[in-house]
Amino acid sequence: MMSELELLSQVRCFEGEQRQYRHVSKRLGCSMQLSVYLPPQAQTQKVPALYWLSGLTCNDQNFSTKAGAQRVAAELGVALVMPDTSPRGEGVPDDPEGHWDFGLGAGFYLNATQAPWSEHYQMYDYVVEELPALLQAHLPLSELQSISGHSMGGHGALVIALRNPGRYRSVSAFAPIVHPSACPWGQKAFSRYLGEDPERWKAWDSVELLRQGAELLPALIDQGLADNFLEQELRTPDWQAACQARGLEVPVRYREGYDHSYYFIASFIEEHLRFHAQHLLQ
Amino acid sequence: MMSELELLSQVRCFEGEQRQYRHVSKRLGCSMQLSVYLPPQAQTQKVPALYWLSGLTCNDQNFSTKAGAQRVAAELGVALVMPDTSPRGEGVPDDPEGHWDFGLGAGFYLNATQAPWSEHYQMYDYVVEELPALLQAHLPLSELQSISGHSMGGHGALVIALRNPGRYRSVSAFAPIVHPSACPWGQKAFSRYLGEDPERWKAWDSVELLRQGAELLPALIDQGLADNFLEQELRTPDWQAACQARGLEVPVRYREGYDHSYYFIASFIEEHLRFHAQHLLQ
Repeated sequence: MMSELELLSQVRCFEGEQRQYRHVSKRLGCSMQLSVYLPPQAQTQKVPALYWLSGLTCNDQNFSTKAGAQRVAAELGVALVMPDTSPRGEGVPDDPEGHWDFGLGAGFYLNATQAPWSEHYQMYDYVVEELPALLQAHLPLSELQSISGHSMGGHGALVIALRNPGRYRSVSAFAPIVHPSACPWGQKAFSRYLGEDPERWKAWDSVELLRQGAELLPALIDQGLADNFLEQELRTPDWQAACQARGLEVPVRYREGYDHSYYFIASFIEEHLRFHAQHLLQ
Repeated sequence: MMSELELLSQVRCFEGEQRQYRHVSKRLGCSMQLSVYLPPQAQTQKVPALYWLSGLTCNDQNFSTKAGAQRVAAELGVALVMPDTSPRGEGVPDDPEGHWDFGLGAGFYLNATQAPWSEHYQMYDYVVEELPALLQAHLPLSELQSISGHSMGGHGALVIALRNPGRYRSVSAFAPIVHPSACPWGQKAFSRYLGEDPERWKAWDSVELLRQGAELLPALIDQGLADNFLEQELRTPDWQAACQARGLEVPVRYREGYDHSYYFIASFIEEHLRFHAQHLLQ
């Protein structure tokens, strides 16, 4: 059983444990690394988990090293689960042109349907099904989960929450790609992973899911107003409009002067963790 | 005047500004990058500065991205000044064998006396003299300063404070190389930068400076007990002994389970910042 989840490193952090694991993902058909932070409370009881989905070019370590989230996670007693952003390794196809916005590091948290991507690029099933089952079997994690993410990972968090309101207690995002069907990053990725027909993209697009009436969990979005990607790629106003059309409160906070970086995430991660804890620990 | 300090980037962080600058150092004879965090209070008044000296292989960005220090610096109204760890660029000699523990990224915060190192490796004068004068002339920094650092940078902070008690209010360190004359990292670096005679090393060794009766500012040292470098390279007990021989209180806190990484620094940086603020803001 131990070989299912191989511990690569473990260091103490805020009296809890920052760990990195490797395991073979059946769904992705490759070996994957992931980072997990276990708060000190996990030494004596099962704790709820916040899944964090990272953005383009990231791996499982950007959030663990740069966000400063462990301090508050330790205080609240919430584990942090940080998966990689795509399948990896020999045999996993990458963008033929080698660009950073597609392929390795850019799985977009969906299930690809088009060859050659469909063999490995099944990040949605990996994050929603395989990883929670694996981690709950081997680590002191309860079944209570919330989900958050940044940029491409904010897209992932919103889509996963809108498709699975029963699996998560709350959702949040930093600078999410809310409307991938309508932006260059999303159109490039979706046309390759899912095919050219935009109808097939709607199931993986948070604005489209909102328009279709999907249930919205308690949600929180932070978006910097000095973020260079806001207008063309992130398109936050499309999400506002989709909420407003349904009479939903718009959980978007614009942040004057903040950009797309981890300095922005670090500045507001405490508020996101306390928001999720309200729903995970009540 | 603007060209003296060229702004490379500026992003908002905890309502303050995380900046990176480039400038030509006369003392080092090369172009240098440095990072500065200005807390929100610096928008309306001069603020004191905590200098942070990083460890082997680091540059000006490790602390700014990984320590999570800006949150507390913003609350307290203290600027963070993060220089690089050595001179850089074409013409600056590196370890002939290309090892990471000497040369580029390993300036040891001293003034080298031996060719070819003495031309550029003058990090002590750079940190103590040139940088404060430059930054106080161009940024809203008061003359109040404290100093801290990690590993090689902990050595630098302790030596600089012991040699200049009038310039700083307080000193702290994470896992410092307290006795470089007596450890492999220090012996390698000092024998090349300063020559083979160990007598010449004493002016750059915090244990030797303590033994010689140097004034010790308010000080705080954190050292992880799971730090692989503790016994051979860091030698914290030598510092304890030197303090005890003089009847000084030993400001060392051993931390069970913590290693040498930034996860250790992040866990305790808040306590260091509040310690320095007591002395900077009183």
